Amino acid sequence: MFYLIGLGLGDAKDITVKGLEIVKKCDKVFLEGYTSILTVGQEVLETFYGRPLIVADRDLCESNIDDILKEAKVKDIALLVVGDPLGATTHTDMLLRAKEFEVETQIVHNASIMNAVSCCGLQLYNFGETVSIPYWTETWKPNSFFEKILGNYKRNLHTLCLLDIKVKEPTEESITKKVRQYMDPKFMSVKEAARQIIQIIENHSDETDITIDTLAIGLSRVGAPDQKIKAMALKDMQKLELGPPLHSLVIPARNLHPLELDYLAQFR
Amino acid sequence: MFYLIGLGLGDAKDITVKGLEIVKKCDKVFLEGYTSILTVGQEVLETFYGRPLIVADRDLCESNIDDILKEAKVKDIALLVVGDPLGATTHTDMLLRAKEFEVETQIVHNASIMNAVSCCGLQLYNFGETVSIPYWTETWKPNSFFEKILGNYKRNLHTLCLLDIKVKEPTEESITKKVRQYMDPKFMSVKEAARQIIQIIENHSDETDITIDTLAIGLSRVGAPDQKIKAMALKDMQKLELGPPLHSLVIPARNLHPLELDYLAQFR
Repeated sequence: MFYLIGLGLGDAKDITVKGLEIVKKCDKVFLEGYTSILTVGQEVLETFYGRPLIVADRDLCESNIDDILKEAKVKDIALLVVGDPLGATTHTDMLLRAKEFEVETQIVHNASIMNAVSCCGLQLYNFGETVSIPYWTETWKPNSFFEKILGNYKRNLHTLCLLDIKVKEPTEESITKKVRQYMDPKFMSVKEAARQIIQIIENHSDETDITIDTLAIGLSRVGAPDQKIKAMALKDMQKLELGPPLHSLVIPARNLHPLELDYLAQFR
Repeated sequence: MFYLIGLGLGDAKDITVKGLEIVKKCDKVFLEGYTSILTVGQEVLETFYGRPLIVADRDLCESNIDDILKEAKVKDIALLVVGDPLGATTHTDMLLRAKEFEVETQIVHNASIMNAVSCCGLQLYNFGETVSIPYWTETWKPNSFFEKILGNYKRNLHTLCLLDIKVKEPTEESITKKVRQYMDPKFMSVKEAARQIIQIIENHSDETDITIDTLAIGLSRVGAPDQKIKAMALKDMQKLELGPPLHSLVIPARNLHPLELDYLAQFR
């Protein structure tokens, strides 16, 4: 059996009882380490589960998954994923390949930022499509995510912006070489995200509904005891320090429900 | 301390380890029983937790919450909620009142249908705004949810439709009387939801992008071992039996990603 188990968002104890039981009985347990992170590291999880974990990086999940799945035909193997296991395309793809290999699968769901974002008081059913904000480079500055935020804003919907994560990314110089070198991991902050959005606003050919004075909500370490939520204008958010990763950004709809306004007030 | 604890979607073991520890140590634990249900009942939860639960109906959550919160100033009290605790407005409102009373609060997140719906293979970031489909009566047949589905469809986004739940609803005759009488609980099925949508399509003044031949996905008991997912035209879905509640319906975007199509194929 191949298990995909969500770890939730905070620390070791955010796994479900069902998930923990499976982790304890499996022959091999992989920890996926490149689409998201918990506030605790591998060692803390290993101590809590009382068993070793094998870190699964992008290479392992994308190139070597077939070997893992073949083994799962005769053994119990789990892949632990921060948040909910089906938040990222990679894992849906794994389930399809498992079906090809006739490997049985089970999913153990958990909280993800896609639903836990409601901790800022905005109602989930008022969110439009979610966007991802990628790290810009000197030569690559995509801004299609901004059009989606604008689209939601015009329909009076909130937008959850997932911020870029770079873990075990090969350096540009090593990408064609046999021995890969890797960049230090980096996690986009709400400050960096706000800066990129403001650059887009400033370069926009015509005036947009979203300006540097538009309200934004910065969230960090949602689900952890030291979770932080701050609401302020975009122009102020580009100076905001919200501590260690992960960060998420929300651009709320223009007209908020009274209950949403009341709730947000505590984060101003 | 006042704890809001998500129970996830399936059975007793879908609570998180953190949630379970809190349930065991609290002075009083309420089980919210009117916004959603698990596949197991109160007795199974009580046995699993090794403690009694107090069922909290709508009256208790909306009218008597102040008494509970006042007690939470000096005692540890938890309210258990199916799914994630912040999926429904009621619970956000509770947290605001807790703040007024200066009661400390903690939220323990869990999976909700808002993220677990990804089990059908559609990518979460391709979902537009979520809609609720209410039970129609002879005299009240709202159809504004259909315009929202159409809006998502036109932008090539999926729509998650949450289906109505009626638990401990007073009968119309008793609503003005001292002694309330209650209707049997009922939970809208994908069949009933498809029928209401088809009625709207048939009564629509002009042709809509969504027709009786549009693809729909029916889901039941997401997260439970006997979870069911079926994909078919709306006209066929109005005859589909998907077993016991809860049910959810998805109207996918017109143009699906190849991976989404591959994944959906197994549910045709």
